[in-house]
Order: sequence, then structure tokens, then C-alpha cells
Amino acid sequence: VQAGERLAVIDLGSNSFRLVVFSAAGGWWQRTDEIYEPVRIGEGMGATGRLGEAPMARALATLDVFAHFCQAAGLEGRAVDAVATSAIRDADNSDDFLALARERSNLPIRVLSREQEARYGYLAAVNSTTLRDGCVLDLGGGSLQLVRVVDRLPRDSGSWRLGSVRMTERFLPGSGPAKRRQLEELREHVVGELAQAPWLERTGRRLVGIGGTVRNLAVAAQRALGRPTNGVQGTTIERDVLDELVQRLAALPVAERSGVPGIKQVRADVILAGALVVLAVLDVGGFDELEVTEAGLREGVFFERFLAREETGGALGNTGEALRGAGGALRGEVEGERHPPLFEDVRRSSVLNLAARYHMDAAHTQHVAALALGMFDQLARLGLHAGDPLERELLWSACVLHDIGMSVDYDDHHKHSRYLILNGGLPGFSPTEVAIVAQAARYHRKGLPEPGPLGPLFGEGDRERLDRCAVLLRLAEDLERSRDQLVRDTVLSKRNGDVQLQLLAEGESAVPRWAAGRESELFARAFHRGLAVVA
Amino acid sequence: VQAGERLAVIDLGSNSFRLVVFSAAGGWWQRTDEIYEPVRIGEGMGATGRLGEAPMARALATLDVFAHFCQAAGLEGRAVDAVATSAIRDADNSDDFLALARERSNLPIRVLSREQEARYGYLAAVNSTTLRDGCVLDLGGGSLQLVRVVDRLPRDSGSWRLGSVRMTERFLPGSGPAKRRQLEELREHVVGELAQAPWLERTGRRLVGIGGTVRNLAVAAQRALGRPTNGVQGTTIERDVLDELVQRLAALPVAERSGVPGIKQVRADVILAGALVVLAVLDVGGFDELEVTEAGLREGVFFERFLAREETGGALGNTGEALRGAGGALRGEVEGERHPPLFEDVRRSSVLNLAARYHMDAAHTQHVAALALGMFDQLARLGLHAGDPLERELLWSACVLHDIGMSVDYDDHHKHSRYLILNGGLPGFSPTEVAIVAQAARYHRKGLPEPGPLGPLFGEGDRERLDRCAVLLRLAEDLERSRDQLVRDTVLSKRNGDVQLQLLAEGESAVPRWAAGRESELFARAFHRGLAVVA
Repeated sequence: VQAGERLAVIDLGSNSFRLVVFSAAGGWWQRTDEIYEPVRIGEGMGATGRLGEAPMARALATLDVFAHFCQAAGLEGRAVDAVATSAIRDADNSDDFLALARERSNLPIRVLSREQEARYGYLAAVNSTTLRDGCVLDLGGGSLQLVRVVDRLPRDSGSWRLGSVRMTERFLPGSGPAKRRQLEELREHVVGELAQAPWLERTGRRLVGIGGTVRNLAVAAQRALGRPTNGVQGTTIERDVLDELVQRLAALPVAERSGVPGIKQVRADVILAGALVVLAVLDVGGFDELEVTEAGLREGVFFERFLAREETGGALGNTGEALRGAGGALRGEVEGERHPPLFEDVRRSSVLNLAARYHMDAAHTQHVAALALGMFDQLARLGLHAGDPLERELLWSACVLHDIGMSVDYDDHHKHSRYLILNGGLPGFSPTEVAIVAQAARYHRKGLPEPGPLGPLFGEGDRERLDRCAVLLRLAEDLERSRDQLVRDTVLSKRNGDVQLQLLAEGESAVPRWAAGRESELFARAFHRGLAVVA
Repeated sequence: VQAGERLAVIDLGSNSFRLVVFSAAGGWWQRTDEIYEPVRIGEGMGATGRLGEAPMARALATLDVFAHFCQAAGLEGRAVDAVATSAIRDADNSDDFLALARERSNLPIRVLSREQEARYGYLAAVNSTTLRDGCVLDLGGGSLQLVRVVDRLPRDSGSWRLGSVRMTERFLPGSGPAKRRQLEELREHVVGELAQAPWLERTGRRLVGIGGTVRNLAVAAQRALGRPTNGVQGTTIERDVLDELVQRLAALPVAERSGVPGIKQVRADVILAGALVVLAVLDVGGFDELEVTEAGLREGVFFERFLAREETGGALGNTGEALRGAGGALRGEVEGERHPPLFEDVRRSSVLNLAARYHMDAAHTQHVAALALGMFDQLARLGLHAGDPLERELLWSACVLHDIGMSVDYDDHHKHSRYLILNGGLPGFSPTEVAIVAQAARYHRKGLPEPGPLGPLFGEGDRERLDRCAVLLRLAEDLERSRDQLVRDTVLSKRNGDVQLQLLAEGESAVPRWAAGRESELFARAFHRGLAVVA
């Protein structure tokens, strides 16, 4: 983690307090630090409408830690943004608490309006998925926000006091298994509230969810299906899987709910209410599933600052400009209004962001990508594959990322690249797409590609996609062995049923030729043709 | 990989040519790039004494790629060191080849004497292991070097034309299974040659091996025993395991030898002869096993430059100084002669080198280490554990490295730290020690420590060592939650059979206290006492 511009976002949520540091430099951004404390400041508010004494004491002690942390880390002024949401916004005694909190911690806490909170959720979701038309669901401990998205812009939105902590206290107060009647009452309450959002049924088929409850449900859903997970970014929770999870949780006493694979102990007491709220939204809106993104309110706050178009004159402005330059510029004004701060192309920005974190030889990877895409296009014109543009994007991604594992160790760097791709994350790509990119990088040196531990994510045609991506990446690597763009281009043609690969080089190309010649076996498996390499 | 000082070492070996780039900056060094080509320049030399036409053509084309690479990477002058070993040194026509190679590639190739080659092997071994008294074995395609080491200094050494390619051509020329008589003749030849080294029997019990043959045999030995491996650094090959491997390889035709788990295809034809040479050395010297290090000739060349004490005025000199400062200064002069360039403490340098690659918050990790070691020492004084200095060093290492995984992603950074420790490598530590450090980092946030996939490396007492390291690291982390050294020290005492942990803090310490209080379960497992945390 290099020095660069940083922003500490402090999220005073109804369920937990969290301090997250985002860092940005040289075209990348990343969450670089975090402190989490399950403060539960909203505890007991359902009954009294006030923040309780014990929750406030926990909150003040936690803010004290955050303030010390910021001071020690040199984060001050515009580099700290502390935002409070539902519980603090709605409590009768919030002014007293805020005065005390600001005085003792000296942190510039601002209370978000419902609209602001919804907007940050929208920014998080649309900047971390390919959502164009649909709906964003943001479920917290205190409130639920829904935003209708049309052509990537926010159209309608609403906020309801339907958070998981509130719903638990009101409808599921006991410690035993939940009763059928309790579940039905909670559901009816949510459905009744959602009647205020008649637009919900018209949002289209995609629903993207954010927030801790959604992330935890996603882990449990993946575990229930036996899918390999490296985080929940881009995973989906199908309606029937969620329904089964609800039945399973409801049948258990609260203390045993964290025994359900994937359910976190610290959320076990409120996860059932949260799941019921999500299920009600799916049903009211007519959605088959919920797409999950790991970004949330905190990322929304960061994106607004980071991607802001106007001169910020402060933290993150310049680097944001640099990244937009690399990852695609922002879209222009919308009918005279300021366009929300969005990545132009989330997938492309994800790949470039991950690559930029590892300072690879850009001239080399770009030339590898150019050679590989050139061969991809020529082979499509020769009729040897369909030339699917999505597959072309996966090939490009694998080319850009194939060497990032060298930052771990040169030995086995192909395996390290896979690890970093799987764990660094590529928002905007599905888990299957990430798996193909990761396995193509894994097999960029030798061996016959296999889905390996990612097999359960592979569907029809994915093994063939992997073979094509891997062999074209390998051929491009072979041609770029001297790393100086010696082989500047290729000409592919059919010769006696084989494919002839002619190298256009600036000088001696014997070694690239031998190296490329070693790929015949995989080439034959990928394209059902022999390969002859000529100078 | 940041910009910094770099050195390209080009190794023109008898079996393969390799270009390796070492980078150094800000207290760390790392191999950052590599091109490998199995040139086999020594092919056929046994019969003719001359470099053959085809091998020379492969060599010249490969040097051309290396030269292009260096040019593209901006490596020139003192930043390139090209060294040739046995085959080129010994060939009757080496002058003709060298003249042509230097003219065409413009690379400053120098031919190492036997003594120089042995010295680089010695530097590699003693700088990557804890060898103090014993012997270094360096087996290449052309020659074998042995160096007797006394108090970390080279005492006696010898070089023999017993490399794996030569021995294969002379004694095992066929493609079928090896005949018993062939094996015996090879062995007798080696034993006869080693009679020139009467000192071999007096070198002590430790034998450290380097070179590609040794590394490949180590992989096969680990596989044969079903041990998990993350590279072969620090592994051992027991004599009986090697003997079984020899029997298994000898019984197979050459084409099937790469079917033995771990044996590389590109070495399959010469690995048996290499294994027989190693076995003969073990027997003549009376060694029970061979310790393996991944460093080799190329690292020796790098260390000489990097750790050189005199002002080099060129590449790597200044950074070397910086690292020695961090990792411990070099030892002084030895009886007026220049002391060889050695790390003062290989293990300490390894830990600091790995940590420095990931730019962590040094003030935080140092304070975590200080707090953890302080508690370790106090608990030993209270009689709650033995206070083993080796265990103390593992705890220190885990503290220094626990956060390096944050460079991959904040989420699951404890798991990423484990991955980076296992794969980045810690020369000087045994695989079991690395496993304990890695698992302690893995469990520095939550969960009850388990050996997990590293279980087969755990022996008696290692689980308990892991528990103690993990809980002390966690407690120190809890106390350093605000990252500003708020809790400056601890006082541990016995109270009613429990351990009381008193925090000496500069201010409010409620959150550190709650956080530390959550470790009672693991503390009880590690030290068989309850834990009470007080301010």
C-alpha cells in the first residue's frame, strides 16, 4: 500500500460502527484499513424512540478509538467523512448525543437525510455492477432504501424504517424459534409499507442488494449451494434459496442460528428479520433473485469524492481524474444537471484498477493484449470460433492481469495471479467470468487448462472459453518473450487444414518461434487445428 | 514491484540459460523477473569435448532474446552480469563461441573459474539457511561443487565434472530403464572422484544443497511423503527417501520418468544421474539428509553485489546498506581479510525483507510486536510457559508479518497474510516454523487456531506453540486498535488463579479492554488460565 490520497469514511450505522480508509494513487483505489465495532446504537430504540444509555456509552468509546486512529494516521480535515444514518437520524435525543459525540471525538459527524443515504447506496451499486435498468436495495440495521435505476440514473427512491434491528425488536423479540404468525406479521408489515412505492413493480428484472445483511445472506446462500466463494461480489441469491434459508433460520432458536453455514455470530440475532424483508421486496417487485455487491454506503461516500468531476481542490480529486482517464471518462452532463459520479465502464475500470495496484510492466501487458486480441479476431474471421465480444473482454482482462502474481514471488507467479484475481475482486464480472479470467492467468505459462477448484462455477461452453483465452494469452506471451515488442504483429491463415501463424518481427525471432511452437497441443484442443509457426 | 535498483544476472549453465532480474528498494529485495530456456549447451560435449553446432545456435538465439530484454528493461552496464559455468568453461571451442556470443549479443559474458562458481554457491547457501558448520553441495548440468563451511566461512572446496548432463551422457545414455550395472558404475565413478576431498567426511552433519536438480528432487521427495509444499525452501531430503526415488526412476524408461509425481518433464532425462550423484555425496560424507534451499548461483552473484560492504558506487550498493541496517549489520573483518558478504541473521533478514515488500504501518506492527513479546516474557516469568527463545522468534515474526495480506484486500486479509507468508518464503526457517508463523497470522483476528492444510507439518507441541503465538498476537492487536500506541504497556499478574492483564494507557481504553476481553477462550486454551482485563 503506497502513500497517496486517502479518505477515512466513518459509518455510524444502526447496527455497527465502522471506520474504513480508502486509498488512491496512480490510477488505483482500494480499501486499505478498517475498524469494526458492533455498537448496536439502535438497540432498544423501537420501544423508546431514544438512544439508550448503554448503546451511547459504547458509541462514544468507539468514536474515541476512531478519533485516535485518524490522528495517528494523519487523517484530518477533508480526509475524514463521518456519516450517521437511520438510528441517529430518527432518535428523539439525537441532538444531545451528537453534541457530546462531536465534542468528545472532534469528528465532523454529519447526519445523512434519507435521500442522501439512498443516493450513496445507488452510487455504490451502479459503480460496482453492470446495472443499467433495475432497482437497488440497501438494507441496514435501521432502514431500507430502494432506488429505481433507469439508464444508470436514479429515477425514484424511497426509505423505510424496515431495518433488520428494528424489525427484529418489533416482530421477533424472543430467543426461541420464530413462530409462523410472527413471520407473517413481519411480512405483511413490509408489504404494506412498500405500497408507498408503486414504481417498484416497474423497475425491470434486476435487483442489486447492498449492506451487511445482504452480504451475510449471500455467503450463506453460496454455502447452501456448495459453490466456491471468494467473497460475494457478483453472486446472486435466488428466491427459492432465500426462502429455504428463512425456513431453516426460523426453525432454530436465536442462539443456534450462527450454526447455519455462513451466518456470522455477530449478525445471528437480526439476520432472520433481514432475510424476511429482502424476501418481501423480491415478491412485491416480482424479482427472481438478488444480485449482491460488496460495495455499500461507505463506498458510495468514497465514489462521490473520488469520481467527482468538479475540482475538489482536496483529497482524492486528482487521482480520481487519473483513474477516470485510465478507466474511461465519465459521461457528460444530463440535461443541464450534474451527472452522478459514475465509472463509464465498471468492468474495464475494475481490471485496470486491479492491474494498477501491482505496478506491472504496462508496455509488455498492453502488447500481449494487442497480440492476443489480434489473433482472436483473425481466428474468428477464419471461422474457427464465434468471436463473442464478451469472451474477447475476458481475454483482454486475462492479458492485463496475467503477471500480477509476480508481486508475490516469481516462482509460481501464474498461481499467485489467480489468487490475486480471485481475492482482489473484479466488480462488474460474474463469479464465472472471474473464474475464467483467473484460470486463464493460472495457465498462462504451461499445463493444460482445467477449471480446478472453480469447477462448480463453470457452465456449458466455459471450458472451451478458457482453452481459447489461455492459448491465445500463451501465444502472445511467447511472442513477447523479450518484452520489447520485437514481434509487432501476427498474420494467421489456413494452410492445408492447419493454422499458420506468421510473425512480423523487427529482428531475430527464433526463440519466440520455438516457444510458440510448444503450444500446438493446447491450440489443437482449443481450435481443432494444427498450428505451424513461421517467421 | 516498485522502481529501484536492479541487477540482471544471466546464468549460462550447462543445462539451461536463465536471465533473472533482482530488484531492491527501501530495505527489501526480490527476484522480479525471469526468462528460462532449456538450451542444453553441454549436449554431446561428453563425446567431443566441444560445444555442438545445434546447441550453439540455440544459445545464440537465446542470448539474443536476453539482450533484447535487457535493452527494453533499461538494464545495461553494471546492471547486467552474465556468467558462464562448466560447459562453456571446459569446451575446447569456448573461445570461438564466446567471441561470437559477445559480438552478437553485446552482453559482457564472463566465464567463472571453478573457485568462483563454488564461492557463489556458498554465498547463496549461507545467506539463505542457518548453516554455520557443514557442507554446501551445488550440482549443475556440468559440474558438482562442494564447499566445507566452518563458522559460516568457506574452509575447503572442490569442483568436479560430475554434473547431471555429463553423468547422463557418460553412464546412462539409453532411453530404457537403467541397468543395475550402469547405476553402480556411475556411483563408483563419483565415489572415486570424491576421494580428492578427504575433508568431506569431517564437515559435520549438515549438508545444504542448491541447484535445479536438487530443487526438483526436493519436490519429488515432498510429494512422495504427502507433505504440503509451498516451494522447497528449507525442506529436507532424507537418504532413504532419495534412495527409493532413485529405484523408482531407474525402473522406468526415460520417457516415463516425468510421470513420477514432482519430476519436471524438462529434467526427466537427467534427473536420475543427478540423484545418484547426490546419493553418493551423502554416503561418502556420512550425511543423513540434504537440506534444500531455493537460492543458487544467481542469488550468490546478487548477494555479492547487494551485500558488498565497500562502496560500489553502482547498482544496489546503497540499498544493500539500507537492508543491512534493518536486518543486522555484517560481521567485521576476519583476520585482516575481507569478510564474505553475509546477512548477520538470515532469519531476521527474511522476516524484515518480506514485511518491507508490503509497506505496512511500521509503527503499528512494531508496537504490536513489543506488546506481544512483553506479554510472552511476563507469562514465562509467571511460570505459564517455558519461554522458549525460538518460539519467541516465531511470535515476533508473526507480529511483524500479520498485516501484509492487507495489500491483497482488506477483507480476509488474515488469510491473505498466510498466503503471502507461505508463498513469499522465509529462508532460514523450516517449513514447520513457516507454518506456525503463517497460521498465527491467519488467526490474528478471530476463530480458534487450527493447523488446517498445514497439519502434516505440525509435530509434537506445535499446536500449543501456535495457540500461544496466536493469542498473544491477538491481544496485542486488540490493545493497538487505535493504531496510535495508546496502550503503551501491560502488566500481567496472577489473581485467584486467573491472569490479570492490566493496561497502561495514555487515555480512554474501554474498546481495547472489551476487545481483549473477547480472547478469554483462546487464552484459556493456550495458558490454562482465565483472563481478566483491567484498565
